[in-house]
Amino acid sequence: MAEMFDSFKEHSIAEFFKKNRHMLGFSGKVRSLTTVIHEYVTNSLDACEEAGILPYIKVEIHSMGDKYKVVVQDNGPGIPRELIGKALGQMLAGTKFHRYMQQRGQQGIGAAGCTMFSLLTTGKPIHVISAHNGTAVSCDVSIDFKTNKPVVKNIVERPATFHGLIIEGFFGDVKFDKGQYGPLEYIKRTAIANPHATIELITPDGEKYLFKRSIDRVPQKPKEVKPHPLGIGPHDLIEFAKASNAKKLSSFLINDFSRVTQKKVNELKELLPDIDFNKDPKALSWQEAERIVKAIHKIKWIAPQTDAVIPIGKEQIEKSLNNVLKPQFVTVVERQPRIYRGGIPFVVEVGIAYGLTDESFPFKGSVMRFANRAPLLFDAAGCAITQAVKSIDWKRYNIQNFDEEPIAVFVNLSSVHVPYVSAGKQAIANEEEIVKEIKNGIMEAARTIKTFIRKRYKAKEIEKKRKALLRYVNRLSEDLAALSGFSQEELKQKLMQLVEERYKLGGG
Amino acid sequence: MAEMFDSFKEHSIAEFFKKNRHMLGFSGKVRSLTTVIHEYVTNSLDACEEAGILPYIKVEIHSMGDKYKVVVQDNGPGIPRELIGKALGQMLAGTKFHRYMQQRGQQGIGAAGCTMFSLLTTGKPIHVISAHNGTAVSCDVSIDFKTNKPVVKNIVERPATFHGLIIEGFFGDVKFDKGQYGPLEYIKRTAIANPHATIELITPDGEKYLFKRSIDRVPQKPKEVKPHPLGIGPHDLIEFAKASNAKKLSSFLINDFSRVTQKKVNELKELLPDIDFNKDPKALSWQEAERIVKAIHKIKWIAPQTDAVIPIGKEQIEKSLNNVLKPQFVTVVERQPRIYRGGIPFVVEVGIAYGLTDESFPFKGSVMRFANRAPLLFDAAGCAITQAVKSIDWKRYNIQNFDEEPIAVFVNLSSVHVPYVSAGKQAIANEEEIVKEIKNGIMEAARTIKTFIRKRYKAKEIEKKRKALLRYVNRLSEDLAALSGFSQEELKQKLMQLVEERYKLGGG
Repeated sequence: MAEMFDSFKEHSIAEFFKKNRHMLGFSGKVRSLTTVIHEYVTNSLDACEEAGILPYIKVEIHSMGDKYKVVVQDNGPGIPRELIGKALGQMLAGTKFHRYMQQRGQQGIGAAGCTMFSLLTTGKPIHVISAHNGTAVSCDVSIDFKTNKPVVKNIVERPATFHGLIIEGFFGDVKFDKGQYGPLEYIKRTAIANPHATIELITPDGEKYLFKRSIDRVPQKPKEVKPHPLGIGPHDLIEFAKASNAKKLSSFLINDFSRVTQKKVNELKELLPDIDFNKDPKALSWQEAERIVKAIHKIKWIAPQTDAVIPIGKEQIEKSLNNVLKPQFVTVVERQPRIYRGGIPFVVEVGIAYGLTDESFPFKGSVMRFANRAPLLFDAAGCAITQAVKSIDWKRYNIQNFDEEPIAVFVNLSSVHVPYVSAGKQAIANEEEIVKEIKNGIMEAARTIKTFIRKRYKAKEIEKKRKALLRYVNRLSEDLAALSGFSQEELKQKLMQLVEERYKLGGG
Repeated sequence: MAEMFDSFKEHSIAEFFKKNRHMLGFSGKVRSLTTVIHEYVTNSLDACEEAGILPYIKVEIHSMGDKYKVVVQDNGPGIPRELIGKALGQMLAGTKFHRYMQQRGQQGIGAAGCTMFSLLTTGKPIHVISAHNGTAVSCDVSIDFKTNKPVVKNIVERPATFHGLIIEGFFGDVKFDKGQYGPLEYIKRTAIANPHATIELITPDGEKYLFKRSIDRVPQKPKEVKPHPLGIGPHDLIEFAKASNAKKLSSFLINDFSRVTQKKVNELKELLPDIDFNKDPKALSWQEAERIVKAIHKIKWIAPQTDAVIPIGKEQIEKSLNNVLKPQFVTVVERQPRIYRGGIPFVVEVGIAYGLTDESFPFKGSVMRFANRAPLLFDAAGCAITQAVKSIDWKRYNIQNFDEEPIAVFVNLSSVHVPYVSAGKQAIANEEEIVKEIKNGIMEAARTIKTFIRKRYKAKEIEKKRKALLRYVNRLSEDLAALSGFSQEELKQKLMQLVEERYKLGGG
């Protein structure tokens, strides 16, 4: 019975994702290529945003036999030499994972996942040129899967007058197409949600698509915020306490969380007379932490700071949807910030575009999902946004059959922590508060659409009646002319005038 | 611009899943409790199976204020003392991850995930008693999140005459219920798919459910198999070559893969005359590996060994479905083994139970999904099984409205590597070959159901006609008696006999 334990081994996160690459979005040839573009473009946008730079991103996809070469170049801050390997060749390393801050990336896996995928499918490392603080470093990055450590080779340094990052990778098991899951659609949607970015795409056929920025203002820089007391559990409290420099429990609570004032600490003290709020926070026991968390839920709090959550903006979305989709009608709703899981702020924006033509956007009943401005193209079925759209009784809004109408619903969820279903970051978990809020947003937007469609319907009806009457005018003018002796032409003019007045000016 | 990199950090896999616990199935109170039961019960079943033991598993769930205590006890082989910490307190450690073998667990995350969840919600370690090879070790296991290393405390050893594992954990943020996502339903379905196991559940109300084994034979022990050449890429080839003891490329290919013979190597040699098959496999370059993989796809191979994939068995499933669901009609289909991604064998089994009563199984249009005999209760929308069921035109099989009929579709996928969508292991990825095969299985089973439903429908129709005619017999016999002078009773008897003959014996 003992020999079954002989093969007991430990594995690295890199080995885990190597075996489960589909969890990172590397499944299916088109999806895999889109995943590569997604990871690099979101990193570029995040880096530019944090550095306060208007992004210019150039994506080139070259077909090379059964492989593709992808080059993504940005004008961001670049990466310091000593961090290039970790940023691109080590999973779970980066600046994003531990910060409570709104960014597209948040796991520190994406770009290293692309390096993994390149190694698995072509055996080639990723070639990087990083121009940061006056120095350009070029090097090749791969991963040691056994240890999840980066391997950086062929390092060349030279002075640079520009800044930015160029990543060049070779990928097998991928395919370019222009369908709704391909890189072109991905970049189109990225452009919609990021009107401050200029993005250029060169396809394997040599076609060039340029999505120019429509706004010359960098979005507000996302802020790192302190967690709200309502969002934490005893375990968090103890962990934060261990990491805190505060000498007293009371000052720890005030310093490390948002909305905690001396007054609030006093309220907690009243509920917990036997806990010493002057004690060293590092000595907090589980029981004490648990009692503090319970007490926190008994007193009233100002809602969490929501200024850390930065939506795209109503006008920007309207502009973008009109620019890119060219619909007959657009309506956009920006909702108030809300909270999920007690303490995590989020904002929902919903746009509905109606009357799309096959030229500008050939997909019927489309749902365009975004999280922190990054398009979600895959795993639609399990996503909170899809669930919210499906739960709408569209007939109430004069949409008879959602899946067959020229309608696109745009939903962007902004949050300091988007609850993704999996490491592939393509679907938002069905958190009750989030689904409800998205649903409310869609219904609010749909009410405007309803009026538009009703008016359009009315206009159509009026036009039908007008045309029907005009058809009689000829005949009637002829008969009247014969009976009365008036000129037929004159009678026709008068009758037409009557009809036009009734239906064109006066309305139905 | 440089300060944005100051917060660059590395993180452990334990920290990753601590922040993304929903990826392991810890989201929602009921689901979280079911996840705990799922992880422990699948581990127990796997361990018993590998050790050739008929499993007896006892699950106790105790409510303790706002927390629950879960105790899972099995009669498996136990865990050796030196591995207890790693097995239960370290993620990505275990016997399963790297082996090409059919097991319920395959990632080495599950049980350590439960320890994490206990620490996060109650601050308590997991208490373990492991009786292995004559020694019982009791200890407390927790995880150091920063390093993903186990922390084992309070170790007590004593001699033992029994073997098995007892795990006792305290969990907050969970809830017991008897709905279709709760632990009772989970265990019921586990019993259906594992008729060789006896499972006992004691609910927080003190109710006792006993699912007795209906078969006294341990399932065939799963075999570890060598990969089939059609299932590997250049990267795998190089990795296997590095790990191999073979001195020559040719013997490496023959030793390390299934179905590779000297004859096959000769065929490869013919296609690759410039590659030296006597060379050290460790010296294989990417180009060579790539060319070998291409050549592999050009020659004919015997299909992969499928004896490593062990289905439950038609009879066993039939017995189980009848035992537990008590339907009017059951049909089970066991399909032939198939291959996905070129080299991974799998087998699909489909059962359809029809005519379920509210007492035995109150859910309409139910899909019971299993992977390697473990029930999948969550994330149904994104699962290959759900997709296959939805793609069926049920009306063709006399099922007018699947979602409202007393029908349950049972699907079990057995494979040495189940392509789960995420680390939570609740949905099977939509691999084309798998979806197609499940669909074929369902259609095969549905054809039998169709006949049953048609017969049942026919029987109903006949009964209706018979009853209608019998209603006239009284009246007719009265009238005939008055007209003819015969006795009414005699006429009635004769007429009834006529009707019965026509509709009861002769059929429609």
